[in-house]
Amino acid sequence: MSKAISGFNGLAVPGPTNMPFALHRAMDVALEDHRAPDFPEFTLPLLADLKRIFRLSAGQVFVFPSSGTGGWESAIANTLSPGDRVLASVFGQFSHLWVDLCRRFGLEVDAIDVPWGEGVPLDLYEQKLRADKAHRIKAVLACHNETATGVTSDIAGVRKVLDATGHPAQLMVDGVSSIGCIEFRMDAWGVDLAVCGSQKGFMLPTGLAIVGVSEKALAARKTAKLPRCFFDFDDMIRANRDGYFPYTPATTLLRGLRASIDMLEAEGLEEIFARHHRLAGGVRRAVEAWGLALCARHPRWYSDTVSAVVVPDGFDANAVIKTAYYAYNLSLGAGLSKVAGKVFRIGHLGYLNEIMVLAALAGAEMAMLDCGIAIEAGAGVGAAVEHYSRTAKRPVSTKAA
Amino acid sequence: MSKAISGFNGLAVPGPTNMPFALHRAMDVALEDHRAPDFPEFTLPLLADLKRIFRLSAGQVFVFPSSGTGGWESAIANTLSPGDRVLASVFGQFSHLWVDLCRRFGLEVDAIDVPWGEGVPLDLYEQKLRADKAHRIKAVLACHNETATGVTSDIAGVRKVLDATGHPAQLMVDGVSSIGCIEFRMDAWGVDLAVCGSQKGFMLPTGLAIVGVSEKALAARKTAKLPRCFFDFDDMIRANRDGYFPYTPATTLLRGLRASIDMLEAEGLEEIFARHHRLAGGVRRAVEAWGLALCARHPRWYSDTVSAVVVPDGFDANAVIKTAYYAYNLSLGAGLSKVAGKVFRIGHLGYLNEIMVLAALAGAEMAMLDCGIAIEAGAGVGAAVEHYSRTAKRPVSTKAA
Amino acid sequence: MSKAISGFNGLAVPGPTNMPFALHRAMDVALEDHRAPDFPEFTLPLLADLKRIFRLSAGQVFVFPSSGTGGWESAIANTLSPGDRVLASVFGQFSHLWVDLCRRFGLEVDAIDVPWGEGVPLDLYEQKLRADKAHRIKAVLACHNETATGVTSDIAGVRKVLDATGHPAQLMVDGVSSIGCIEFRMDAWGVDLAVCGSQKGFMLPTGLAIVGVSEKALAARKTAKLPRCFFDFDDMIRANRDGYFPYTPATTLLRGLRASIDMLEAEGLEEIFARHHRLAGGVRRAVEAWGLALCARHPRWYSDTVSAVVVPDGFDANAVIKTAYYAYNLSLGAGLSKVAGKVFRIGHLGYLNEIMVLAALAGAEMAMLDCGIAIEAGAGVGAAVEHYSRTAKRPVSTKAA
Amino acid sequence: MSKAISGFNGLAVPGPTNMPFALHRAMDVALEDHRAPDFPEFTLPLLADLKRIFRLSAGQVFVFPSSGTGGWESAIANTLSPGDRVLASVFGQFSHLWVDLCRRFGLEVDAIDVPWGEGVPLDLYEQKLRADKAHRIKAVLACHNETATGVTSDIAGVRKVLDATGHPAQLMVDGVSSIGCIEFRMDAWGVDLAVCGSQKGFMLPTGLAIVGVSEKALAARKTAKLPRCFFDFDDMIRANRDGYFPYTPATTLLRGLRASIDMLEAEGLEEIFARHHRLAGGVRRAVEAWGLALCARHPRWYSDTVSAVVVPDGFDANAVIKTAYYAYNLSLGAGLSKVAGKVFRIGHLGYLNEIMVLAALAGAEMAMLDCGIAIEAGAGVGAAVEHYSRTAKRPVSTKAA
Repeated sequence: MSKAISGFNGLAVPGPTNMPFALHRAMDVALEDHRAPDFPEFTLPLLADLKRIFRLSAGQVFVFPSSGTGGWESAIANTLSPGDRVLASVFGQFSHLWVDLCRRFGLEVDAIDVPWGEGVPLDLYEQKLRADKAHRIKAVLACHNETATGVTSDIAGVRKVLDATGHPAQLMVDGVSSIGCIEFRMDAWGVDLAVCGSQKGFMLPTGLAIVGVSEKALAARKTAKLPRCFFDFDDMIRANRDGYFPYTPATTLLRGLRASIDMLEAEGLEEIFARHHRLAGGVRRAVEAWGLALCARHPRWYSDTVSAVVVPDGFDANAVIKTAYYAYNLSLGAGLSKVAGKVFRIGHLGYLNEIMVLAALAGAEMAMLDCGIAIEAGAGVGAAVEHYSRTAKRPVSTKAA
Repeated sequence: MSKAISGFNGLAVPGPTNMPFALHRAMDVALEDHRAPDFPEFTLPLLADLKRIFRLSAGQVFVFPSSGTGGWESAIANTLSPGDRVLASVFGQFSHLWVDLCRRFGLEVDAIDVPWGEGVPLDLYEQKLRADKAHRIKAVLACHNETATGVTSDIAGVRKVLDATGHPAQLMVDGVSSIGCIEFRMDAWGVDLAVCGSQKGFMLPTGLAIVGVSEKALAARKTAKLPRCFFDFDDMIRANRDGYFPYTPATTLLRGLRASIDMLEAEGLEEIFARHHRLAGGVRRAVEAWGLALCARHPRWYSDTVSAVVVPDGFDANAVIKTAYYAYNLSLGAGLSKVAGKVFRIGHLGYLNEIMVLAALAGAEMAMLDCGIAIEAGAGVGAAVEHYSRTAKRPVSTKAA
Repeated sequence: MSKAISGFNGLAVPGPTNMPFALHRAMDVALEDHRAPDFPEFTLPLLADLKRIFRLSAGQVFVFPSSGTGGWESAIANTLSPGDRVLASVFGQFSHLWVDLCRRFGLEVDAIDVPWGEGVPLDLYEQKLRADKAHRIKAVLACHNETATGVTSDIAGVRKVLDATGHPAQLMVDGVSSIGCIEFRMDAWGVDLAVCGSQKGFMLPTGLAIVGVSEKALAARKTAKLPRCFFDFDDMIRANRDGYFPYTPATTLLRGLRASIDMLEAEGLEEIFARHHRLAGGVRRAVEAWGLALCARHPRWYSDTVSAVVVPDGFDANAVIKTAYYAYNLSLGAGLSKVAGKVFRIGHLGYLNEIMVLAALAGAEMAMLDCGIAIEAGAGVGAAVEHYSRTAKRPVSTKAA
Repeated sequence: MSKAISGFNGLAVPGPTNMPFALHRAMDVALEDHRAPDFPEFTLPLLADLKRIFRLSAGQVFVFPSSGTGGWESAIANTLSPGDRVLASVFGQFSHLWVDLCRRFGLEVDAIDVPWGEGVPLDLYEQKLRADKAHRIKAVLACHNETATGVTSDIAGVRKVLDATGHPAQLMVDGVSSIGCIEFRMDAWGVDLAVCGSQKGFMLPTGLAIVGVSEKALAARKTAKLPRCFFDFDDMIRANRDGYFPYTPATTLLRGLRASIDMLEAEGLEEIFARHHRLAGGVRRAVEAWGLALCARHPRWYSDTVSAVVVPDGFDANAVIKTAYYAYNLSLGAGLSKVAGKVFRIGHLGYLNEIMVLAALAGAEMAMLDCGIAIEAGAGVGAAVEHYSRTAKRPVSTKAA
């Protein structure tokens, strides 16, 4: 079985996202000397501007040639010591993996199991934190947007719980599939460590871990005993101060990152959040019109960057995904771990507009029909078309002059 | 009014077509010396292989750094003399323009006016040719695919008429929006001059006129008195023989053309024709489901590369086009000349698959809804989705294991 | 014999020139609709800005998807009629070819033969013009920079001769390898038609003829009887007025042209001319240090964009060129026609700096040594190194702090 | 002070190296789903083919989205435990940094200080290993090519020492600036861990750590207690087995890596090594002709990938580097740490040919002259020109026919 060879591939996974041509171009550069005398003229503003995307005023944003997983590792390795207690919750593959990483580094993780389809359990967090009179919990982990299930959690709520309980633990957030797509505020929410990658909201190839660090978290590195070198904040701080890096940086991706930040700010973060919400609304209306359910169990969990669609009993979601891929050049996201074969995921984040979403919905319709799932052809796309037309911002006058 | 800034632009005009990434890459080369000693190792096979795309065994294919219009000019300038009679028919903007060009070069054109929405009138051609006992008509012009109206004409039929009447006129065909997309056969149909451009079936940027010339047409240059230099076949023959060009060729596009031919042959011309027919079928079902009509007046004229959709009375097709463009990043083709404001055109040619067509249909739906045209949201897309699902080649087994 | 496969190719031919990465990127765009409603927002400033490069205030610059040869054709076809007299001079392959083109279009050309290595003979022009009391000469042709011999002619001088003789003929200039590289002034020099291509000073791929036309030349189209369509100024004027084109333009190259103009103006035309002069100076010192002669017979003819180097008697310049190409990945320009085998040409125009020129000189040294030409290794490069070091603009303080 | 804006930048640092256009193109791809059903068809051969570059038959090559430093970290984290003893030697910035990394991870490093300009001291290694009767030393580190000083060490010699002493320690080699450039043989030399990055011999952007691991080293992970997650071999083995990765891989760079391996094998590793040796020979002759010395103290240490040139007393090497950069668009490598200001480095590795090296030498000459260093203009370039001409492989017949 091989793919059709004509036509663009539709990329509707929840990351990597679609890369704008402008970013292709920004990265299509000759390789360059990262010790050049004018290199800091490029890097210093870049690192400063990143803070605006994280909505971080003090503190620092680090860029490692790595991935989101590396970002997670840098967050704990620079702030915690073996045996430190960590509070976390698991409700999908990615919240699970971060907990696993913590354990491998010798942290003692209190990981609350939550049904997949829900998010961070604020009540249980509050309970645990209130119970921790001795403040043995050094860090609270929260996955802002669980990419595996299409669930967004309430990070401001976690901060409120920490404040309400007067708990000094650091708040560490996995913002891999949220930052640059949906509202995220390090300052306002008191987030101490926020982890992102280049391949989601930044619309770039995989290859950068981008980690926002508050002043409080920066201070924690002085007592943190976990070993670190590649991911060491200290080396990075020392070298970044002059616009350089402790080892060869991924300059090509940094050039892309410059253009990415410029694109994000040209559109405007608030406008980007609104766009993601509107586009996601179309997908949710389509799912409803198909008569199917989302993995996310309640509208308050609905993610504006990814929707996990549950296929009817007796059908294999992977067959839908394979059909979409091989017959229609469309990449849908697979269900992972507990929901493997039960859901297919539609990523709707990053560089995206109505017709791209509609192409994905139409592709999903064809694949479901091919697999025998009894949906009405055009029902989902039609619901989304109607939603987009009704909520479109730029009406053009319509009648013949 | 400005365009939305996120997401890829949908390109659903009937040329330029969507350029595959592979062709972007093939053209992203350093500039090179077109007199290099090994340049012929690249050009000689290229020029030979082009003949396979034209289905031309004898004769020659020329490549000028120009456009389709230049190709038309080369065809007449190398084969005709001032005052020569030409038989033609006009049923759209492009068949009109070629006639206009002929007149500017001092040819005496007998141009039959045909209702827009129909194609080459075989019966009238036969009549005119039969009447031309003295064989004063030196060339018969036929627009294979009228891009302005979405009408495909029967070129094999024109050949039959020429044969039936025993008329020796050269058969010159505008294949700009047909070659490489729908069936075209120089040898079998006795076409003497066939004109194409790089930006349609070849999926490249505009910039090459590609002209297939039969041996009979090549011979005609010896007596042809129209002036020519840039478009001179003789110079080209002499230089091409050794793999060079009479002046600096558009090497970058030639590198793209090499990759284009390879892609066309990797998919296979017959498969390409079938794909265009199937994709066009979806568009036609969508138009029907919208309750709208095509400009093409009868299925025998339906083009597999472009559909001109007539908007209901009282609506302005240009408002639909502008809405699609500004609100939804989708380029639809405008109505030209006689049908301006009355039709919008959906190009469905070149590098294309189901989800790309469906994105265009969905975009057209949103734009029509925004403009107040009473279609049912999803009806057109749904009809196409059903058509594609029903006719898909590669079923994947469907039930959960 | 095949080329070495590692390392960049050195391109030291007099066009195509080296393309900046920035222009690669500017052209690496998705194809677009040239009838889009906002297309004029791109094209109108582009066409206006081109006039600054030509130093043309009134009149118009046209851009055809073509090459320099097409530009020549457009110049005469729009301004002259069959049988018109033209004054010209021939001193190299390119001045020869334009004359040939004129003759093919039925013009009566008085072409003065000049030794190759010299340029436009002002005295003979004056003589001929003065003798033409009846003003039967309608156009005077001058090749500003003869690319075949590395000779620059005095266009301001031709204007003086026309003024001195009070002759109303149009002044048509081949500026293909001069515009954007060395001083060129349409207004100040009273040039009526100036022809350029995209692949020299504009640093782009071949594919655009760029033609500057004075108001006087524009007026001439009303009486000009040569046939034209693809190259018609009238159609272009009508369409360009609204920012469109009479047929599909080479949009990708136009995007490149936008970036090219921006680059030219960012550096500054005067600075560009000075740079070309300084770089050419290094080449000339190298040739002298090799003990070889230029084809240009006197410093007043020396071209700042190309040097044709005469190899010693008994040696084959083509062997040098082939050696440079196959053994050292360096493209040198071949001698054409009368000077074939006698000279190799070093192009030093466009996107260029000292180390690129020095690489070409070093490559030429290796190739000459391999071919047995008795030069001293390093002599030429050393002379150029010294010239560049001595004339460098940006000294950096030198001693250890 | 700002850089000249015309002309390509010369990149003569010892990494990143010059990226071939073919690799630019290979990486200019749309982003893709790294969980696509046919992704393994791409990755499995890629990972297998990498072993040929490392000359590794058993074992495995891992690819992390990281840099060389990350590669070092992966090597120790997967094979050693806190408190393990390591034997190493320090004779430049990079051999120093690896030792520093080991110490941060709690290893007990016996690091022999060697004068910068020399390499791994086989005699001292032998002494230390022989003395370690208890085999407390678990790993022996060796920097194959010290990029800071231009010194190549004898890795086969280290193996001989290990064998002679019957010591079971793992042999870990930093091959960052050697693999893919100069001879490197994991099997033959009994190397257990070899670390490389994408930006040197592989000619790609920075962003991949490429780590070759012998079966013995793979086995060591079962007892190794250092914490690891991002760099965990186990996760990688499990996921790689099916052609996938434990987290989002840097797919774009992997596409480049595919093309890189193909280029390396098309040229042939032996031919590549010979080319590096020949090109380096030209640089060394130039340094000699300038009357300057290399940092490497003896020909047996001379590196074929980088030369560190000592400037005369009283001159600042950084002024030479800045002048080359700002005045001549040429990036030379700076002296690091102990040799800062005393040397400039010429990288001569990766995608490279004669004229590229000569451009760098000519640029260095101009910069030195500008800085007042008394060299003879052209002397160095001339010596290299002569060397290359004399040793060229492809003579073309020379005399006029």
